[in-house]
Parts: sequence; structure tokens; C-alpha cells
Amino acid sequence: MQQIIYSNDLDGTLRPLLEGRPAVVVTDANVERLALPRVAVLARLPRIVLQPGDDHKDLTQLTRVWDALERLHVTRLTTVVNLGGGMVTDLGGLAAATCKRGLPFINVPTTLLGAVDAAVGGKTGINYNGLKNEIGVFAQARQVVVSTCLLHTLPRQQLLSGMGEVLKHALLGGHDHFMQALATDPDSLATEELLPLVRRSVEVKRAVVEQDPHENGLRRVLNLGHTAGHALESLALQRDRPVPHGYAVAWGLVVEAVLSRMLLHFPGDDLQRLAAWVREHYPAPHITCDDYPTLLDLMRHDKKSRHGEINCTLLAACGDPRPDQETSPDDMQAALDIFRDLMGI
Amino acid sequence: MQQIIYSNDLDGTLRPLLEGRPAVVVTDANVERLALPRVAVLARLPRIVLQPGDDHKDLTQLTRVWDALERLHVTRLTTVVNLGGGMVTDLGGLAAATCKRGLPFINVPTTLLGAVDAAVGGKTGINYNGLKNEIGVFAQARQVVVSTCLLHTLPRQQLLSGMGEVLKHALLGGHDHFMQALATDPDSLATEELLPLVRRSVEVKRAVVEQDPHENGLRRVLNLGHTAGHALESLALQRDRPVPHGYAVAWGLVVEAVLSRMLLHFPGDDLQRLAAWVREHYPAPHITCDDYPTLLDLMRHDKKSRHGEINCTLLAACGDPRPDQETSPDDMQAALDIFRDLMGI
Repeated sequence: MQQIIYSNDLDGTLRPLLEGRPAVVVTDANVERLALPRVAVLARLPRIVLQPGDDHKDLTQLTRVWDALERLHVTRLTTVVNLGGGMVTDLGGLAAATCKRGLPFINVPTTLLGAVDAAVGGKTGINYNGLKNEIGVFAQARQVVVSTCLLHTLPRQQLLSGMGEVLKHALLGGHDHFMQALATDPDSLATEELLPLVRRSVEVKRAVVEQDPHENGLRRVLNLGHTAGHALESLALQRDRPVPHGYAVAWGLVVEAVLSRMLLHFPGDDLQRLAAWVREHYPAPHITCDDYPTLLDLMRHDKKSRHGEINCTLLAACGDPRPDQETSPDDMQAALDIFRDLMGI
Repeated sequence: MQQIIYSNDLDGTLRPLLEGRPAVVVTDANVERLALPRVAVLARLPRIVLQPGDDHKDLTQLTRVWDALERLHVTRLTTVVNLGGGMVTDLGGLAAATCKRGLPFINVPTTLLGAVDAAVGGKTGINYNGLKNEIGVFAQARQVVVSTCLLHTLPRQQLLSGMGEVLKHALLGGHDHFMQALATDPDSLATEELLPLVRRSVEVKRAVVEQDPHENGLRRVLNLGHTAGHALESLALQRDRPVPHGYAVAWGLVVEAVLSRMLLHFPGDDLQRLAAWVREHYPAPHITCDDYPTLLDLMRHDKKSRHGEINCTLLAACGDPRPDQETSPDDMQAALDIFRDLMGI
């Protein structure tokens, strides 16, 4: 399993990992400007700079990285350091994993979403023919260096988006973890102080991934909040009003907590706490009951659904997930009604 | 480790491996015409047909396979069956390993070289920017079905080329294995009868690869014959008189057996036996002593050489390989002189 290091001293942490070996940085143009100058040991290395944004996580940029690696005459002893958000760690990881049948790589996530989700767990990939992460491999970074000292370089929206996945991991982690997450005020916290919560979040994911590295079963618990969340995200995209992924996850967590309450007796006070936090920190999604047929349709066609039913991971309690819960359209519509009440829509 | 099945009943062997699951065949246009109709269970499946030849083992054809897999709506339950020589198993294996982060695949080599070398051991790849196998991953086929019943569909030259690697494995396998290989007459043998020797050959490779799946050390013994062989192959290519890979390996084995005699007391009678067999069955390469500087230069720049020295795997005896033997230019020139005498050049 990959080594995960938690540290807000990036320079001091990376230096011994890179000593005496050739290395190359893969990053994007935003991170190059805002974050790279703050990590001296990386700023000195040759760099490959991608165009930012998920719509550039494609074959064109992958071949540009391959070409650049060759121009730099890398060998199998060269370490690739992926410094950036999920787009950089996904694409840079795939480039490293496929160059000369595998260069070692280190992920240094610079976004909260990247730290708690993309950088850990061995998934690499690019979008292809309009399909997300269609081409990729499972390949473990040699190390992942998780820090929160660069998060202040990002807009507030990015931090909030990452908090969606932090909430998900907290719900999976247990009641104490859940309460710790809800005690976090993303508007007043110095980002360095987030590290203990982020560490706890990553450890939830790491524990799941270690037991199911190739997504054969257990890993589906990580889909919590994503059946409803993806549908809300896709609907927003269809209307040309895209929302950050983590916003949709936060909404999806509330919808699925309502379902968990209805079907598995998830505690009512925890549902109220979660809903209040999401309502306080996130904008409300623009949906009415006229949108339900479209949303249900999107849920039925989720890539993790099979045979066209609606399939959710639900919770009997914080820390007690139940994957593969088949959910009836009636129950989902009832949950969406209650969700809209809770969000004040 | 991957499952290797030895059988000349391809249909009966493949049928239970494919039962009840979707599958797709990747092959090339020659194999589609000559071999595919002989394997009923594969002939019925949807197929993706590549242009044949190592110069088509490229990104263009890789993307064509990805596109075709998507048009066929494959899922992670779909098995990709690579039916063909090394080009098909290398490229088809890479396409499968990278589609949706990994579809299961079965290799069914149709050439002798593919059976004893490319199809087993988990190397996949394409050529890129003029570099051989530059882009690829280590990914194990779920099964490799090794047969010799299709070898008669190939020109004699292909069979002889494969025998180069068979000889290499025999020299690595031990004296008894070596004598079995030399007792093979590729001109008179019904190809089905080759299966026991091919099995023994594959088992030598499998034993090495199991101990060193990612080529960190031991696997270098498989480089026997290839330092001199690659140089002779590259020289022929530079002169626009390309030779089959296995011819160059057979010549390289003789050169390196001479060096083994000079430096490690490899038995003289085994050297004579090897040289006689290669002289009888292969044409002689067109080299004179004027070519030595070019050949030595090519050896120094071999991708498996480091720091520009000439590095060979040599033999103290059949079955007793010694990797990483640094070889002086004088010794290599002396060996090339003796090689030319032995080949009657």
C-alpha cells in the first residue's frame, strides 16, 4: 500500500523523498503560479505544466506529458511529482504509470478535494470520448503527501467543495468523526488547522481502499451521497448552471440521510445536524418537483447502477454504511421532498 | 500470477473460460484470415481487427481499440481475447489494461515468438516517438492459452524466429532442456509436436518472471543473447535489410556463448553444438570486421546498458546464467571474430 504522509512542512517532507534521484514536476498553470513557488524543493525541478480544468484531462494533454518526459530523458529511476488537484494527480499518475511501464510517482494534492479523494487510492485516468475517467489504470503513488498549508491559495468555493467529501468520510467514519467535521467552520478556520480532520478523512478512505483496491465490492461504500449527488450535478450541468462536485455531494448526503432515516432508522438528530450544516454553508440547488422524473432517470443510468434500478449506499447510523440498497422511485421522491423542506427550497 | 494453459484443443479450452460472460476478440488482419476461422468459439465473438506489423503497434491503433471497445459497450465484466502475435498481445493487453481501469484479458498467441515470449509475463505496450514499447504497463493476462496447432499457418521464417527465443530459454533451463531444443528439426516437425518443448520454454520464463515481475533484477537473465543480438538486428535495420528478431537472437546467443567460453569456462562442446545448429538453420548475418565499431557502439547504447559500458548476461554452463557481466570491447571483438568463423562468414 502507498505511504501517506501528513505534513504542513512540504519542503522538509519532500526533500528526503527526492534526494539523490532525478525528479520531474507535473502541475497545472494555476498551481504553478500560486503554489509551486511556495515549495522550494519542487520549484527547482524541471516542470511539465498542464492547462487547468477537468475538460483538459484528456488524451491530448496525456501525450504532451509523455512527450515532455521523453525530452527530459527520464529513466525508470526518475520520480514524477504530481502537484495539483485531482486533474493533475489523475493525469500525471496515468502518464507516470504508463511511461516505460511505470515510473514511480508522488502525489502532492493542493486542493481539499484532491487531498481527501483523488490523490489517495490508486485511481488514475483521463476522460475519453465524453466519458469520465474512461481510460486509466489502478496505480499506487509511491507516496502521497497530504497537507493543508496550500489551501488558502484557493477560492472559498474549492474549499467548500472539498468539505462535501470530508462530510462523507465523517459519516462513514463514525459519530465522533461526524461531530468533529460539523464543528469545522470553513469560513473562519485557518486552513493549516484543517490537517487533523483531513487526516481522519483520508484514513477512512485508505481503510476502505486497502480492503478493496480494485473496486470489486466494499469500495462501493465510498459512493455514499453520490447517487443523488451525481444526479443533481448532472441536472445542473444540463441546465448550463454547473455546480462544484462537492456541493452536489453535500446535497446528495442529505438526500441519502433522509432515505437512511426512512429505511434504516438512521438517527433523526444526526439527520437534522447534517441538514443544518449543509443549509448554512452551501447554496440550495435549484430544483422543483417537476425535476423529479429527470433526476430519477439520471440515477437509474448512473455508471455504478446495474440493471436500471436506483442503487444507493445508505447508513443505519454514522459509521455503519450499507452498500447496494435498492431504492424505489416512490421512496426517492419522498426523500427529495423532505430534502427540499430541509434546505428551505 | 497468471494462469498458463497448454493445449492444442483451443476451442475446448477457451469455451469454459468464456462461458456466460461477454467477450471481444482483438486480432490483426492476417490472423483474422488464417487462424480465427479455426477457433469456432472466437469466430462468433465481436472482433476488433488491427493492421498487422510492429510498425502499427502505435497510439493510433490503441485509440482505435479503445473506440471500438466503447462502441461495443463493454463493461468491467467483458473479457478481451487477444488472438495473434506479440504485436496483438502487447497492444491488446494495453488497451484492456487501460480501458475503465482494467478489463480482464486472455492471451492466445498464434506465433512461436508470441507463445514463448510476448504473451507471458505481463508486459504490455506500444511503440511511441520511435521508441520500442515506450508506453505500456505491467498487467497480467487472466489466462494465457499456449498452443502450437496454429503455427503451421505461418511462414517458416516466423517459426525459425521463434526458435531463437526457444534456444535462449533452453540455454537458461539446463543441459537436458538444451539438448531437447537442439533435437528439434524445424523443417520436418509437425507443429503440434512442438508443444512439449514450448511448454518447457514458457516455464523457464514464468519461473523468472514470478520472482521479478517488474524487472528489478533477476529478469535480466532473460536478456541472454540480446546484447549482441539487438546490435546485429539494429545494424541490419540501419542497412535496410531488416532481419527477424529471433534470427538476431540466435546469432547473439552464439556470440555470447563464445564470450561465456572465454570468460566463464562455458563448455566447449555445448558451444560447438549451439553454433552448428544455428549455422545449419539460419542464414549468416552480413558483417565484416569493418562493422565492429558500429556494433560496439550499438551495444553501449542498448537500453538495458547503464553508464555506456557493454553489459551481457553470460553462462557458466547451461542453466547457470550470470547477469550483468561487464564486457570489454576487446573481448567482444574477439568473440565476434570467433562467431564469424563458426558461422562460416
